[in-house]
Amino acid sequence: MNFASDNWAGAAPAVMSALARHNSGFSPAYGADPLTDRISERFNDIFEREVAVYFVATGSAANSLALSAYARPGGVIFCQNDAHIRVDECNCPEFMTGGGKLVGIAGPDGKLTPDGLREALQAFPDGVVHHGQAASVSISQATESGTVYTLDEIAAIREAAQARSLPLHMDGARFANALVTLGCSPADMTWKAGVDVLSFGATKNGCWCAEAVVFFDPEAARGFEYLRKRAGHLFSKSRFVAAQFDGYFEEDGWLATAAHANEMASTIAEGIRAAGGRTAWPVEANEVFPILKRSRFQALEAAGARLYEWPATDLAATIAPSEDEVCLRMVTSFATTEAEVEAFLSTLAGAA
Amino acid sequence: MNFASDNWAGAAPAVMSALARHNSGFSPAYGADPLTDRISERFNDIFEREVAVYFVATGSAANSLALSAYARPGGVIFCQNDAHIRVDECNCPEFMTGGGKLVGIAGPDGKLTPDGLREALQAFPDGVVHHGQAASVSISQATESGTVYTLDEIAAIREAAQARSLPLHMDGARFANALVTLGCSPADMTWKAGVDVLSFGATKNGCWCAEAVVFFDPEAARGFEYLRKRAGHLFSKSRFVAAQFDGYFEEDGWLATAAHANEMASTIAEGIRAAGGRTAWPVEANEVFPILKRSRFQALEAAGARLYEWPATDLAATIAPSEDEVCLRMVTSFATTEAEVEAFLSTLAGAA
Amino acid sequence: MNFASDNWAGAAPAVMSALARHNSGFSPAYGADPLTDRISERFNDIFEREVAVYFVATGSAANSLALSAYARPGGVIFCQNDAHIRVDECNCPEFMTGGGKLVGIAGPDGKLTPDGLREALQAFPDGVVHHGQAASVSISQATESGTVYTLDEIAAIREAAQARSLPLHMDGARFANALVTLGCSPADMTWKAGVDVLSFGATKNGCWCAEAVVFFDPEAARGFEYLRKRAGHLFSKSRFVAAQFDGYFEEDGWLATAAHANEMASTIAEGIRAAGGRTAWPVEANEVFPILKRSRFQALEAAGARLYEWPATDLAATIAPSEDEVCLRMVTSFATTEAEVEAFLSTLAGAA
Amino acid sequence: MNFASDNWAGAAPAVMSALARHNSGFSPAYGADPLTDRISERFNDIFEREVAVYFVATGSAANSLALSAYARPGGVIFCQNDAHIRVDECNCPEFMTGGGKLVGIAGPDGKLTPDGLREALQAFPDGVVHHGQAASVSISQATESGTVYTLDEIAAIREAAQARSLPLHMDGARFANALVTLGCSPADMTWKAGVDVLSFGATKNGCWCAEAVVFFDPEAARGFEYLRKRAGHLFSKSRFVAAQFDGYFEEDGWLATAAHANEMASTIAEGIRAAGGRTAWPVEANEVFPILKRSRFQALEAAGARLYEWPATDLAATIAPSEDEVCLRMVTSFATTEAEVEAFLSTLAGAA
Repeated sequence: MNFASDNWAGAAPAVMSALARHNSGFSPAYGADPLTDRISERFNDIFEREVAVYFVATGSAANSLALSAYARPGGVIFCQNDAHIRVDECNCPEFMTGGGKLVGIAGPDGKLTPDGLREALQAFPDGVVHHGQAASVSISQATESGTVYTLDEIAAIREAAQARSLPLHMDGARFANALVTLGCSPADMTWKAGVDVLSFGATKNGCWCAEAVVFFDPEAARGFEYLRKRAGHLFSKSRFVAAQFDGYFEEDGWLATAAHANEMASTIAEGIRAAGGRTAWPVEANEVFPILKRSRFQALEAAGARLYEWPATDLAATIAPSEDEVCLRMVTSFATTEAEVEAFLSTLAGAA
Repeated sequence: MNFASDNWAGAAPAVMSALARHNSGFSPAYGADPLTDRISERFNDIFEREVAVYFVATGSAANSLALSAYARPGGVIFCQNDAHIRVDECNCPEFMTGGGKLVGIAGPDGKLTPDGLREALQAFPDGVVHHGQAASVSISQATESGTVYTLDEIAAIREAAQARSLPLHMDGARFANALVTLGCSPADMTWKAGVDVLSFGATKNGCWCAEAVVFFDPEAARGFEYLRKRAGHLFSKSRFVAAQFDGYFEEDGWLATAAHANEMASTIAEGIRAAGGRTAWPVEANEVFPILKRSRFQALEAAGARLYEWPATDLAATIAPSEDEVCLRMVTSFATTEAEVEAFLSTLAGAA
Repeated sequence: MNFASDNWAGAAPAVMSALARHNSGFSPAYGADPLTDRISERFNDIFEREVAVYFVATGSAANSLALSAYARPGGVIFCQNDAHIRVDECNCPEFMTGGGKLVGIAGPDGKLTPDGLREALQAFPDGVVHHGQAASVSISQATESGTVYTLDEIAAIREAAQARSLPLHMDGARFANALVTLGCSPADMTWKAGVDVLSFGATKNGCWCAEAVVFFDPEAARGFEYLRKRAGHLFSKSRFVAAQFDGYFEEDGWLATAAHANEMASTIAEGIRAAGGRTAWPVEANEVFPILKRSRFQALEAAGARLYEWPATDLAATIAPSEDEVCLRMVTSFATTEAEVEAFLSTLAGAA
Repeated sequence: MNFASDNWAGAAPAVMSALARHNSGFSPAYGADPLTDRISERFNDIFEREVAVYFVATGSAANSLALSAYARPGGVIFCQNDAHIRVDECNCPEFMTGGGKLVGIAGPDGKLTPDGLREALQAFPDGVVHHGQAASVSISQATESGTVYTLDEIAAIREAAQARSLPLHMDGARFANALVTLGCSPADMTWKAGVDVLSFGATKNGCWCAEAVVFFDPEAARGFEYLRKRAGHLFSKSRFVAAQFDGYFEEDGWLATAAHANEMASTIAEGIRAAGGRTAWPVEANEVFPILKRSRFQALEAAGARLYEWPATDLAATIAPSEDEVCLRMVTSFATTEAEVEAFLSTLAGAA
């Protein structure tokens, strides 16, 4: 019953076999290999346009380097309060952007709202050098609260960003999970909705280390290869990242693993509700944030379930944990089994 | 006949099978997994003392982060002119150290000399704020010229560094190759000779991405985990780097692959000399820098050999290429076969 | 009727005459001159202990460099929401600290509270690399709201900082104004209350450019001269900053100018209250934040008064401006005359 | 007999009286004052075109911020070996440019040569990410060796830079001295010869702190105000820098002080030659580098002369100091008197 995080899983079988398959022979280093070329083409297909794709080592690097491509001196990046870039990357975005500032904005269900963005932007009028200058807007899809922006929501944020000529970044650490939820195309969820640059994460959904920065306007990517290399993120044996993506995309396996993870999360959420419990936020991807009596949490832990307590801030009074309750985080992945979910739910029922 | 670079090879069989072996099940992320712990212990064994080990994505990151642990404002890092950190890392060390300066020092056979170091240090006396302050000394073992420092040479550099209280960094992108050449222990070649921090590279010698920063004084590593994370170099599925090292170290395979690569380089060097040719520098690890008539180089290329022209600077007049000659670089690896080497040498003989 | 800012004033007569007095003859550059030495001694006297003093060009530089002396990778600096370092320095602290993060904490009357600090620190537990690491705490004395911390308040913040081994920085852009209000000694208001490093501002109170970073533990200042020079803040003709301080300190003139400015502010505040108005925050130094009917503000402006509208956030409902009211900022200085204040108050009365 | 440096002098009378003249009354802060506007216009007049002018605190800041306006990730700045930006600014350019690399190029008489530049640029071909990317070229006028580039020399460097689309920066710490030597207009010596951005230094030639960054294409200055503020270099009481320039430019006083300093240097040089001595480099501005017997140097020092020993590198064998000789540096300024020069020369004659 391991629901600690989707990065506790290993690599999906298709990914492992692709790694083995592409291991033989010599291949040019530093991304000049034919497989990297082929995977870049595959990204063009997936996004239905020519894109510029750069592999990096981690999601933190993808986010921070993507934002650094739009950095300005005294630059300010706007995001929702709980955004990973703001609270979980040890100032990597600040470092990579030469001292950028991340302004967190409150928003319901882990989402940035256009109104929240507009209000925050008012504190940074153009031309007032003391406050610095607005540089970019970033959203996470799916969010840190396990919710998913609708296409209209993304477009509305885009509009608010565009009013100040700001580029829109999407942290897609759980891109596939959100995509499956919306049932739209990758193009719909990104550049057609106004996204300029995407951190395309595949690690959590079945790779071991496959993260890419995707620019929808290749011209905007000018110089990015230097930003990446300057940060030590150009792999010499780049073909092994390409290989992972090769396995990942094979027969749309990435959508299948995401769909499975999402389904497991839904099943858990239903089970919790059936047991009279509730979740802090709607369950729209592969994360569940149950609010449970502390005693039930302890019983679950005693039974071997791995899940984390989670700081549940900004919740409405009707939802927020009471004194004897606790908010938890559960994450599912391709590796989550139905048996695990069933075991969890029956333990939960027993603990009631 | 591929001698382009050792990072054109794939991963060695033991590494690939270790990746597959450690793929199953859940494992804590971000380096808190038992395998990472076990491999850290393995590093202690290998170096015969307690060390602090940190995995990162690339050799550039390993070098730059290691140096950043000893950064000072206005800091100056001393290295040989051809050092990778100075000419091949797109200012990654400068960036990671907050604007450090790399001072290149001429030295024979790709080596820094104690006298060269001492002379360079004189231009940076303590307390003269205008010039900045000496921060560290870095050597590459094996060097960029394919040579290997003796233990005495390392100790003598250490002494010159120590006279100014400077730490000594070793870029060990080809650590195993040098180690096999010297036939000493890893401890002998590092902390016993005065090395403070090591970039331990395994990628070129058979992994696909396994680089580690090794501090010989764990106390000096304080805060390093933040430097690494701030740079986006903390892998979430860290166990896969640990897995590579597990395969790498298995039954001393890493020494065997390095020994093989070195032997292939020696065979090539002997063949070149037998054919009346010469090399720019002594062949002491897995790189050969032949100086050949341009016509022979063209014949080799026409026959399918992959090798690069190389800028041969600072060579003695008796060795430097003449007008119709060219200096080349050939790199061997675990994947280089005797058949390839034979084919190369007979093509060379035929081209004479 | 100029109340726009204290940095709209020129230099006080004693400062100008000191500049002229110390202009003759040759003097070593870069702070090695006898006058700089003498002023450093003067700082020792003023603070009743040996301190390390460094002149820099601006208050932004003083704050940012002081904080950079205590920077850590992924470092987090804690301050009140409205702190100058957080909202008015174009990310200079973030830049100088290599990507530090400024966490703003709500607090009444522009003040950081020990409880607010403790709560904020809880989100950054030691050893959780993802969140970065707590690095320092900063307070402004006087605050951006024109209030002054009592000695007990400073000591309580110090205690909360100390519980996490964090140094305490004081932004003393209006140090003299606060000092005069408290009627204590400079030592009392700084190191005796637990301040580790001070930005000692003299520009607003009568110099033209005289700002100093003062370390109360000279040992903590090690390397600071490199931080300053690396940022381009070491004046060549340093004696002219020293000269300004010489004039500033002469016959305790700095306390007199601050006392005058404070008194002018008090007089304004009393006049406003007498006219039935109120201020957003207590008037404890040389700033007044009146809340007036917009029509009265317009009448004042029409009569030639210079003062700014001010964002009045976080005010209690009983104080906050109503729809037809506006919050303003008025700043007095050594150059503010009683006549100006009288003219302002009678205009205000007439506009009622 | 003080020839230690031109920044050992105080401020010229016209500058001091301008400071006093502009001290009265209130004036907007942060460069929004009418005097700053007026001086900006004055720069337009002086350079015969619309320029963008930014005051900063020091020459190091002017150079480093000017270069940061043209920074690129992994960027490389090319300059002569002895350039101040390379050896005397404690890595300020490296820091401000986010880790830029300064490549020093040997050149005679302290000058960068077009051939030297072209050769150095060859090591940094476009598109090779490992080496970083060429970013800018910088020259010092007058040079650190006291020589002055002719207009043709500047234009030829510009041509070599332009072949790689690189901007040309001029470090004009001693701009006026060079200008007087050439007898041309400021426009001739800068944008008409292809200079893109200039560090216009006035401190050494009679101000106490007046340095400006001048962009000849105002469009290229976009965002520069943020770079300056981010580095803590926006003065609040900016009018006092403007005031210094007002006094500096008054009745072409700046050209007169520079002419005087140059003449004093010429007189010294002639005296040295008359005494059978020689100088390391031609004396073309306000610096003299005599090569004297050590005994004569000691006699001069004993007589109270202030002058520094200087590392005389890269000198032709016919000029370089012999074993019992020493190379010295003497700098003259507006404050150097004929009496001092006469005293120096007669002491020298007596020591022969």
